Amino acid sequence: MNSENFLLSEKIVSPSYIRQGSQARRSHEQLIRHLLEQGKCPEEGWSESTIELFLNELAVMDSNNFLGNCGVGEREGRVASSLVARRHYRLIHGIGRSGDIAAIQPKAAGSSLLNKLTNSVVLDILRLTGVRSVASCFVVPMATGMSLTLCFLTLRHRRPNARYIIWPRIDQKSCFKSMITAGFEPVVVENVLEGDELRTDLEAVERKIEELGAENILCVHSTTSCFAPRVPDRLEELSTMCAKNNIPHIVNNAYGVQSSKCMHLIQQGARVGRIDAFVQSLDKNFMVPVGGAIIAGFDEVFVQEISKMYPGRASASPSLDVLITLLTLGASGYKKCLSERKDIYSFLSQELKSLASSHGERLLHTPHNPISLAMSLGGLQAGNDKAVTQLGSMLFTRQVSGARVIPLGKEQTIGGHTFRGFMSHSDSYPCPYLNAASAVGITREDVSACIKRLDKCMRTLKKEANIAGSLSLQNCDTNQISGMQNVMIDMIYNIILKATDVDATFFCFD
Amino acid sequence: MNSENFLLSEKIVSPSYIRQGSQARRSHEQLIRHLLEQGKCPEEGWSESTIELFLNELAVMDSNNFLGNCGVGEREGRVASSLVARRHYRLIHGIGRSGDIAAIQPKAAGSSLLNKLTNSVVLDILRLTGVRSVASCFVVPMATGMSLTLCFLTLRHRRPNARYIIWPRIDQKSCFKSMITAGFEPVVVENVLEGDELRTDLEAVERKIEELGAENILCVHSTTSCFAPRVPDRLEELSTMCAKNNIPHIVNNAYGVQSSKCMHLIQQGARVGRIDAFVQSLDKNFMVPVGGAIIAGFDEVFVQEISKMYPGRASASPSLDVLITLLTLGASGYKKCLSERKDIYSFLSQELKSLASSHGERLLHTPHNPISLAMSLGGLQAGNDKAVTQLGSMLFTRQVSGARVIPLGKEQTIGGHTFRGFMSHSDSYPCPYLNAASAVGITREDVSACIKRLDKCMRTLKKEANIAGSLSLQNCDTNQISGMQNVMIDMIYNIILKATDVDATFFCFD
Amino acid sequence: MNSENFLLSEKIVSPSYIRQGSQARRSHEQLIRHLLEQGKCPEEGWSESTIELFLNELAVMDSNNFLGNCGVGEREGRVASSLVARRHYRLIHGIGRSGDIAAIQPKAAGSSLLNKLTNSVVLDILRLTGVRSVASCFVVPMATGMSLTLCFLTLRHRRPNARYIIWPRIDQKSCFKSMITAGFEPVVVENVLEGDELRTDLEAVERKIEELGAENILCVHSTTSCFAPRVPDRLEELSTMCAKNNIPHIVNNAYGVQSSKCMHLIQQGARVGRIDAFVQSLDKNFMVPVGGAIIAGFDEVFVQEISKMYPGRASASPSLDVLITLLTLGASGYKKCLSERKDIYSFLSQELKSLASSHGERLLHTPHNPISLAMSLGGLQAGNDKAVTQLGSMLFTRQVSGARVIPLGKEQTIGGHTFRGFMSHSDSYPCPYLNAASAVGITREDVSACIKRLDKCMRTLKKEANIAGSLSLQNCDTNQISGMQNVMIDMIYNIILKATDVDATFFCFD
Amino acid sequence: MNSENFLLSEKIVSPSYIRQGSQARRSHEQLIRHLLEQGKCPEEGWSESTIELFLNELAVMDSNNFLGNCGVGEREGRVASSLVARRHYRLIHGIGRSGDIAAIQPKAAGSSLLNKLTNSVVLDILRLTGVRSVASCFVVPMATGMSLTLCFLTLRHRRPNARYIIWPRIDQKSCFKSMITAGFEPVVVENVLEGDELRTDLEAVERKIEELGAENILCVHSTTSCFAPRVPDRLEELSTMCAKNNIPHIVNNAYGVQSSKCMHLIQQGARVGRIDAFVQSLDKNFMVPVGGAIIAGFDEVFVQEISKMYPGRASASPSLDVLITLLTLGASGYKKCLSERKDIYSFLSQELKSLASSHGERLLHTPHNPISLAMSLGGLQAGNDKAVTQLGSMLFTRQVSGARVIPLGKEQTIGGHTFRGFMSHSDSYPCPYLNAASAVGITREDVSACIKRLDKCMRTLKKEANIAGSLSLQNCDTNQISGMQNVMIDMIYNIILKATDVDATFFCFD
Repeated sequence: MNSENFLLSEKIVSPSYIRQGSQARRSHEQLIRHLLEQGKCPEEGWSESTIELFLNELAVMDSNNFLGNCGVGEREGRVASSLVARRHYRLIHGIGRSGDIAAIQPKAAGSSLLNKLTNSVVLDILRLTGVRSVASCFVVPMATGMSLTLCFLTLRHRRPNARYIIWPRIDQKSCFKSMITAGFEPVVVENVLEGDELRTDLEAVERKIEELGAENILCVHSTTSCFAPRVPDRLEELSTMCAKNNIPHIVNNAYGVQSSKCMHLIQQGARVGRIDAFVQSLDKNFMVPVGGAIIAGFDEVFVQEISKMYPGRASASPSLDVLITLLTLGASGYKKCLSERKDIYSFLSQELKSLASSHGERLLHTPHNPISLAMSLGGLQAGNDKAVTQLGSMLFTRQVSGARVIPLGKEQTIGGHTFRGFMSHSDSYPCPYLNAASAVGITREDVSACIKRLDKCMRTLKKEANIAGSLSLQNCDTNQISGMQNVMIDMIYNIILKATDVDATFFCFD
Repeated sequence: MNSENFLLSEKIVSPSYIRQGSQARRSHEQLIRHLLEQGKCPEEGWSESTIELFLNELAVMDSNNFLGNCGVGEREGRVASSLVARRHYRLIHGIGRSGDIAAIQPKAAGSSLLNKLTNSVVLDILRLTGVRSVASCFVVPMATGMSLTLCFLTLRHRRPNARYIIWPRIDQKSCFKSMITAGFEPVVVENVLEGDELRTDLEAVERKIEELGAENILCVHSTTSCFAPRVPDRLEELSTMCAKNNIPHIVNNAYGVQSSKCMHLIQQGARVGRIDAFVQSLDKNFMVPVGGAIIAGFDEVFVQEISKMYPGRASASPSLDVLITLLTLGASGYKKCLSERKDIYSFLSQELKSLASSHGERLLHTPHNPISLAMSLGGLQAGNDKAVTQLGSMLFTRQVSGARVIPLGKEQTIGGHTFRGFMSHSDSYPCPYLNAASAVGITREDVSACIKRLDKCMRTLKKEANIAGSLSLQNCDTNQISGMQNVMIDMIYNIILKATDVDATFFCFD
Repeated sequence: MNSENFLLSEKIVSPSYIRQGSQARRSHEQLIRHLLEQGKCPEEGWSESTIELFLNELAVMDSNNFLGNCGVGEREGRVASSLVARRHYRLIHGIGRSGDIAAIQPKAAGSSLLNKLTNSVVLDILRLTGVRSVASCFVVPMATGMSLTLCFLTLRHRRPNARYIIWPRIDQKSCFKSMITAGFEPVVVENVLEGDELRTDLEAVERKIEELGAENILCVHSTTSCFAPRVPDRLEELSTMCAKNNIPHIVNNAYGVQSSKCMHLIQQGARVGRIDAFVQSLDKNFMVPVGGAIIAGFDEVFVQEISKMYPGRASASPSLDVLITLLTLGASGYKKCLSERKDIYSFLSQELKSLASSHGERLLHTPHNPISLAMSLGGLQAGNDKAVTQLGSMLFTRQVSGARVIPLGKEQTIGGHTFRGFMSHSDSYPCPYLNAASAVGITREDVSACIKRLDKCMRTLKKEANIAGSLSLQNCDTNQISGMQNVMIDMIYNIILKATDVDATFFCFD
Repeated sequence: MNSENFLLSEKIVSPSYIRQGSQARRSHEQLIRHLLEQGKCPEEGWSESTIELFLNELAVMDSNNFLGNCGVGEREGRVASSLVARRHYRLIHGIGRSGDIAAIQPKAAGSSLLNKLTNSVVLDILRLTGVRSVASCFVVPMATGMSLTLCFLTLRHRRPNARYIIWPRIDQKSCFKSMITAGFEPVVVENVLEGDELRTDLEAVERKIEELGAENILCVHSTTSCFAPRVPDRLEELSTMCAKNNIPHIVNNAYGVQSSKCMHLIQQGARVGRIDAFVQSLDKNFMVPVGGAIIAGFDEVFVQEISKMYPGRASASPSLDVLITLLTLGASGYKKCLSERKDIYSFLSQELKSLASSHGERLLHTPHNPISLAMSLGGLQAGNDKAVTQLGSMLFTRQVSGARVIPLGKEQTIGGHTFRGFMSHSDSYPCPYLNAASAVGITREDVSACIKRLDKCMRTLKKEANIAGSLSLQNCDTNQISGMQNVMIDMIYNIILKATDVDATFFCFD
């Protein structure tokens, strides 16, 4: 209420109480003022009541909520369902204009403010989490893959003759498809095995650049966050190489905001070499629904170029979600989430290690991967080559989600390119394994329950393998009988698979 | 509640009342059954309580809402803010998978069902509104422009050597940018003036095809819904031409679903010739927030190809909005909206006509445009060449939204291409004009208020023009004095512009 | 947002758009200002966004929402569940203080304002609907019966020696119990039959006053809204009698606000005689959830006395509901509801009349009852004395709610008093009947569906009666066989009752 | 969704995922089953999604939500505002029927179930918190005071000739008014001072019983939870006395559920003697909005008698709030709240103690009061007799809520009875003091902030007192000058009071 209305209220209810109420209102206004002034994520989180007050204020500024508005255009922010209006806080106009997703909308001052503030708050968080010299960023209502595509499409206008994108292999479909969709030819650079880790083959990248010619290369497309035993790319060296060869460099930082290591790699890469843009997922880093990403960079002009490349308006929904979330958590709350994540990473690592040893397996040594861990499943496979796949199926039905099993030797063709050993980031990784990750928002209960159920599943599988094993031992001299026995074993597995009732292939994809 | 719980309830509350309650529940279930069985928009709209019951049921099926779930992946549908969780009905996993925006997610059976049903219901509506033979469609959380880009990017893989897109001119930035962003060269075909209407220059299109060679042309990119005096493209003839020359044909049907004429054009085009895909906006046709589109086509394989081109998951928010809206309205409710729109189109047309004649202007004769109307502003401009722009500014401050004024002679360069007479779809349209549209959701009150305020603004401007005119009459013989007088007039206008306090250029853009 | 924050916003988004947004905000503030200034129900309803803005503003003024509050009391407005906080708009402190339900709470300026405004807006509506000279009123979170009790308890302090309450009979349990609960002895005055109508027996009232002595009578407790064929009490005459004898007069106006006739009776009664307080239900008159009432009167001091009699704080929930509802409807919206109700009353009357005649029954002639109608069921009962009860049961299972059937001869003892012919307001009404009412919020669809289903039920019952009749006709001479046949008929009815599965007595109660 | 709909879903989305989803649904159903079966508060709290699912299920069973319902009654659960419908989860019919607040409503099976379950869950909590032998209870939508009134009104029917209620003094207006409102004469029994504590004067009670005659006494009305230095009444002895004399006994247990001591007293009282009913506040014990209470007792028949005394239906809102809250917390969550409260009581006690000693005051020794504490303010008053009142005012403006200051010598007349030393439960308590309580929901931050601000206020007041003191010292020999000086001091205080801008009396009331 404005001051006039507070004065009127004093006539109805005692002035001193109203005045205290109006002071209380001012403390909400102070928080909003701070946000508008600084454009930064507030240190302490806001209460739900401040957030809703603020969103209501924004909505009131949009023309679809003007009490006296009359609309004779083709896009007036009309809403047929009150459920829909309500869930968007009556912010209907989306973000951006025909020309630019970051542009201000005359019809929607409130939504425009929301958009600008979200980008500003998110930029602040990118700085706080480690990329201190990031210059500009914007939220885009597309997932990471499509956002990468947009970056590549923007680069095309700068390098109209380039056809290739150099890409250290990471077995995640959308990464690969982001290049295909943009119309470029990915040049897959296989990783090298160092200990258990799969790391960037820098020499191979360099060879490729020479081979193809820098001018024919649109960019290098590297990755930070990834499933172990792959580890983040050697960004410093790649960035230096890009700078030297005058090749753009786009980093897929999908869920890397949550890890200071990933963010540090980007900061270092930009400092010593060249990073044109880095892209991160909203949902994976900020615990919001799937569907948004942040495109960020060190050169404001280039980031703007990307934002101008998005034709038309866009959904404000992901921006709204991340703004609400960051205002709720505050910078301190978000940092607390990240530090808990780190602690639970250690916890998960220990738990997996001891579980592994109790089953004759081992935790792969992947110190460069700050989020994902891998436990070998060689013993399991030794007993029965379907056991690995079956473990995945069993975990699914036991409501362990996100634990991926990686069998050996899977082949997959995407966009004409055939990947051997798909999912393992390598043509032939030495052993099958299981992945588990400590991602932001995970709890100790998640880890404990997962370990318990995993342990149980592995015991069950081993028991079966022992039975099969003893059968096979007795019949080892006659191939014919062994053939019959194989049929029996298959039958048993089929029955089990049916019982667990899951398509045995589905859980192999991301 | 399941039957067991109903039985238990009978012990607490009288069995006959509980049984009636359980029967009442069944009637909600019947509606849901019908939807699942038919995959069609229900004829009668659902109550909010049925809709929320249904959405809650869907949410319960997603793994992030499993009571016993433990997550050790990097994307587990965690939500930090309960405001965010609530506004998405706890449907957090978005739609699609890495490989395909239409794919089913193992972690999210409910969200997958939502996605499938939305696409199915929307397909039903496309059929009901006139494109009876449409084969397949999907909702994509991107606005029309970016969705067109996705279509072009998909076509690139079919026609790797094509560089050009033939495009009958329509002055809407995002249309043009959709081609630029995809990396193609738009070949702008100017419209021809037939009476007041601007129509497709079929011969010019044909000439261009010959000139460039069909194999070098990615597609023809035509438009249905548009601002008068431009009218929908001659889809039948264009489609025939495309079929003959074996050139793909993509139709921008931005807000055409609401008009039976636009839908009929597409249906006819596909019947007699070739239309590969047509794209429509969710917000403009279904009164939902900005940010989604429907990509539809007559060949299921090609539509799937497009959906597989989208790399990664995507926001479920636009799908959720349109599903809620269509379930709320029902087919009959939506048809009622459309028929009201049509009636108000006639009403708007009459009102504008009589307003125009009272001001010495006229309603342009554009019978082929079923949504947008244009009223000449030649007289206004005659008095003062800034008056047209000023009218736009005045309407804005008077909360008339969506009424665009189109001055003559504006130039605009987009993506390297310079458009003369920008916004008028023509290098040199004969007169300036004002647009008003009868779009779905408009009310009679909108029209009446708009006409009233418009009338008032024009009177004010004329009064000023008369003063200026009389001044200019007295001083018509001496150029020097006339120069001084111009300065004065400018000053007056500047004062007025300042008072109305609006950047005089902003309202010229879409 | 305050002006400072709008200024800051201008630096982020274009000043002219922000200024328009801030103007738009002002129009909401204007509505609030008007409410605060006038304390009246706004003529036009508010949008949901204005209402929620207003409620949020109120909540912010309560100490439980102060950002810096620390509480060390035993009642601090803490809320454990965010679902609960949200559904009450974070207004937790209720209304009133220990001493007075209308008192202002230091801890809750917002809730206090809500309370005062609600009472003021409701007072305005009581005036608009016909009781122009009402002086004061307040909303109390108790239903009508308990609110009447509170009035009686207040009167006790004025008339410590009075034991009796004179009460023209109305067969509604809570009316009777309101007196019993307060500890008084109801003196039931039977109604007189005038044509079909049951009306106040004024002479009997007068006799009772003389008999008991005015000083021993706490008050006369009369009723307006009631089920036909009873009609509203003769308030004018009763009021005059009360004034003459110096006896207080409390009117139960349960659902009478919706009828101008009932309101007029009260206005007239107060003008010519004496009415101390009149009590009306919130839910029945204002379409809000059950649980609130308005206690109103013509002497501010006495109304205050009642409000001070309520010991302790009280729930703000009913106040909040009625305020939201009246702000949503506006005075014009509420008046429109009332006039629709009146129209549907005529419609219902016609429909019942023609249905009755087609079944050989008749619509009772009760012109003094403006809400409730009654249709005779004599013919139905003639065929079978259980048919009337059965009809009620059938209507229930067919989802016709609110249609009461009144069999003859029911006896009921409440608080020691035995009512013969209970539910019919009379020891021996001439025929059984069915009630239907046109209450505010009813639709034409309700009436049509009810008539249709009622018709069908009556047909079914007749068919059965005919079968039974024909059986009985054939066997009319032998009592023995007739006895057997009765057993059979009973069996049939039992089967039917079981099938319809409803306790045949439940629907006889209000 | 029912099984049929799950089957249909399997055709749309992979059967194995749907089956997992349907299993997930079953786990929600299991929780509901458990609740229906046991009628107890679940040990672990439910998620919001389970709660909302459950409430939606209940709503669907009420006739106002039947899809095919037609209503022709005067009370059909119609709701005009969707905001109102939504905030009540569409549960509109309230609880109870004309005859009984605990009765089942034919029109509202869902609401009836809600009502029964709430009473059952609340009963379980009363047992868990210490009154193990409680037989029956019900939630009533009235605050404690009015609920006590209802108990007294019920007793009147059992003891029609009784006029007095014996009441060990507690200075809380609504307690006293609850008896006045019911029409009885409270017999105030002053407390005795034992150390710092004010305790029940058992002998005085006994004398009063003899003096008035047991048959003339409606009941003894005792209190558990209260502000220190008063402590809970000696319930064991009072109960024994009541049993012996055959006098009913009603206990005001306002916020005693949160204290095992208070609950133990009631349990013991009932075991060794007689307690007819005990009444507790919903908001103070369960952190819900103001406006509900629980009436409980050891004899099911008597509790039912009370519930039948409430004439008419009632608001379901308080029942809904407490059910949501207890399902959210679970028994373990609620017990955790209580144990935290106890810990913070110790913390508050220590902090107050050290604060007191640093200001030359002391924490009163009141070991029998488990919730409220009192710190003497004798030194403060010595310096200036307005300082105590002023301290209250200062705390209010500094957003310390709930800290009451009790000056000496206040007189207050309620319902004709004059209380000397009002607020201190005693005609003449030895010193003024300040109360602070550790009530359920309090946090350590509340305590710390309160202590800090209190410390600051006391320092400020002392500084002023010193100035005044030194002035007064210098001028101690001349009365005239001292008179002038008093004027000055008064002026200073008036200025301060004006600055803090609070009516200096308001904060003395509960």
